[in-house]
Amino acid sequence: MNVVTVNVPSGSYSINIEPGRLDFLDSAVPSDATSIAIVTNPKVGALYLSRVKESLLKTGLSVFVIELPDGEIYKDWVNLNKIFDVLLSNKMDRHAVLVALGGGVIGDITGFAASVYMRGIRFIQVPTTLLAQVDSSVGGKTAVNHPLGKNMIGSFYQPESVEIDIDVLNTLDAKQISSGLSEVIKYGLILDQDFWVWCENNINKLLSLDKDALSYAIQRSCELKAYVVGKDEKESGLRAILNLGHTFGHAIESGLGYGNWLHGEAVGCGLVQASVLSSLLFNLDESIVERVKSLVKSIGCPITAPNFSLEKWIDLMLVDKKNQHGKIRFVLITKIGESLVQDVSEDMIKLAIQETTK
Amino acid sequence: MNVVTVNVPSGSYSINIEPGRLDFLDSAVPSDATSIAIVTNPKVGALYLSRVKESLLKTGLSVFVIELPDGEIYKDWVNLNKIFDVLLSNKMDRHAVLVALGGGVIGDITGFAASVYMRGIRFIQVPTTLLAQVDSSVGGKTAVNHPLGKNMIGSFYQPESVEIDIDVLNTLDAKQISSGLSEVIKYGLILDQDFWVWCENNINKLLSLDKDALSYAIQRSCELKAYVVGKDEKESGLRAILNLGHTFGHAIESGLGYGNWLHGEAVGCGLVQASVLSSLLFNLDESIVERVKSLVKSIGCPITAPNFSLEKWIDLMLVDKKNQHGKIRFVLITKIGESLVQDVSEDMIKLAIQETTK
Repeated sequence: MNVVTVNVPSGSYSINIEPGRLDFLDSAVPSDATSIAIVTNPKVGALYLSRVKESLLKTGLSVFVIELPDGEIYKDWVNLNKIFDVLLSNKMDRHAVLVALGGGVIGDITGFAASVYMRGIRFIQVPTTLLAQVDSSVGGKTAVNHPLGKNMIGSFYQPESVEIDIDVLNTLDAKQISSGLSEVIKYGLILDQDFWVWCENNINKLLSLDKDALSYAIQRSCELKAYVVGKDEKESGLRAILNLGHTFGHAIESGLGYGNWLHGEAVGCGLVQASVLSSLLFNLDESIVERVKSLVKSIGCPITAPNFSLEKWIDLMLVDKKNQHGKIRFVLITKIGESLVQDVSEDMIKLAIQETTK
Repeated sequence: MNVVTVNVPSGSYSINIEPGRLDFLDSAVPSDATSIAIVTNPKVGALYLSRVKESLLKTGLSVFVIELPDGEIYKDWVNLNKIFDVLLSNKMDRHAVLVALGGGVIGDITGFAASVYMRGIRFIQVPTTLLAQVDSSVGGKTAVNHPLGKNMIGSFYQPESVEIDIDVLNTLDAKQISSGLSEVIKYGLILDQDFWVWCENNINKLLSLDKDALSYAIQRSCELKAYVVGKDEKESGLRAILNLGHTFGHAIESGLGYGNWLHGEAVGCGLVQASVLSSLLFNLDESIVERVKSLVKSIGCPITAPNFSLEKWIDLMLVDKKNQHGKIRFVLITKIGESLVQDVSEDMIKLAIQETTK
């Protein structure tokens, strides 16, 4: 088993990565737990619920199941309250443990539920998409969406542990792998030129789900995320660089309506847009934008953004949580493997949008 | 101005107590704030909103107002979302500051909104009831209610500061003063025999709103609460003693429907019930129960509990957040000024209920 440790001010926890991990989840449950509730969706549940439930029942505790509908549009108040309804009607107490079995939507909503149920109970992340394994399950960001913006309501709340079974990636479709790979290559782009080059060289192995390549990519992504989160748990500084491509990406998701593009597809396109914006601002070598476009395209993500009006783009980006004092704040790259955060003028943003839409 | 400092692991803040404090709230707003939203209700707003708004406008920032309906039954999702709607539609960012102008309901819901809006923004407590000044505004417990239990959804999230204007108590009715005094005497009962005796000796001054007596009672209550919260911010141990009378009290509020008895009235009755239960368990001197009954009665709170069936009482108490492993946990007193937390058998609880209902 590969273990990545996350050290944050609010505590320390492990990311445990191994094939077949789903069958050993009982070992992740704290010894003083009083009951367990698994939160999942019908799609993931059909594939893995019985195995996960069986492994959790080995603790001897009651295991409840909460099935929420599948999709980003369901990461809302209504479904959050469905979790609370089950917990309360089964009189689950402060020592209950939630298990998030699913992708980012399940992880975000379950983590948020855990952070506010009785002012905070423990939860375990069991991410079943590549995107969740390399990004959303690690670092303690939890949230639900609001009609006026994505992830607007949430908390910083760390899991007890993250349990990654790389075998589950075999049941994902190609789009979901693409979506996850956009976050993988993002880590290289913001922090680690060597890892970016490794991704360029191993893209075919990753796309064909080669176990060793995937295992390395997941572990390196988790290490880089753990490094950043360990330095800045609550996003007062460095952590913002993890949002490279996300200001554009969130605008795409919100503008098209959540669920039309996968989150990682929007982020992939956002990486291209952010590198074009960086290029305009810092006069970067043209080859950098080309390499970003080329790798985003190879992983199967779109490189051309939706054709919203410039006003709509700006309006969608003004609600981003990174913004301060009404300015729009972007993560930008200065070269491959180096990034920074900066307010950008609307004129520059509009130029970058014109270059990346059609 | 009297200042009580609260030192908790997540930070340190001041409780500032003085007559006329409402006119100086601009000094409480952090210098890097980008905008302000006051959350209040129509009753408090009619009395104090224009003064508070005027003092906050001295910061030069935009000040928005969010008016929620008055009452515990409105401390729910619907009204929580009304806060988010205003914040988001005005594009308020992570450096926005919320001001909770009102009693415990406004303080709890505003604090919870602040704790989860964009994963946490700052907020200032401006409590306008005695109950909120001595209890709910201090210590960082925030929450909304769920149909299956009070304060079931919330967070531990400390305010930037608590601003107490004792002049506002003049506009409260007698019931609200009684309700607040039940929390004041609670501090004596759990922690400070001298303060309990002071309350017995000064009850008439408190009831007639003598400024010096009120000022002392508020300051001493805040000091005792700050002491407990400083030792145990997240209620993993000592802090539970602050809930003396609350297990019974919450059952009363929930069983009768929120709002039929004021929170402090239910707690006052709960103090009597908890002392009867303590007496049964620890064979206390009978004079203790008599002194508790007598002081609770003098402050104007009920000393006889509603006549629910024993099964209903138990069921209502089983959802209490302090419970573990399906047992019912109570705060009990061993003498006046000393308390502890203990699981109690249903038989004993039923005996105490029979002795305190009619």
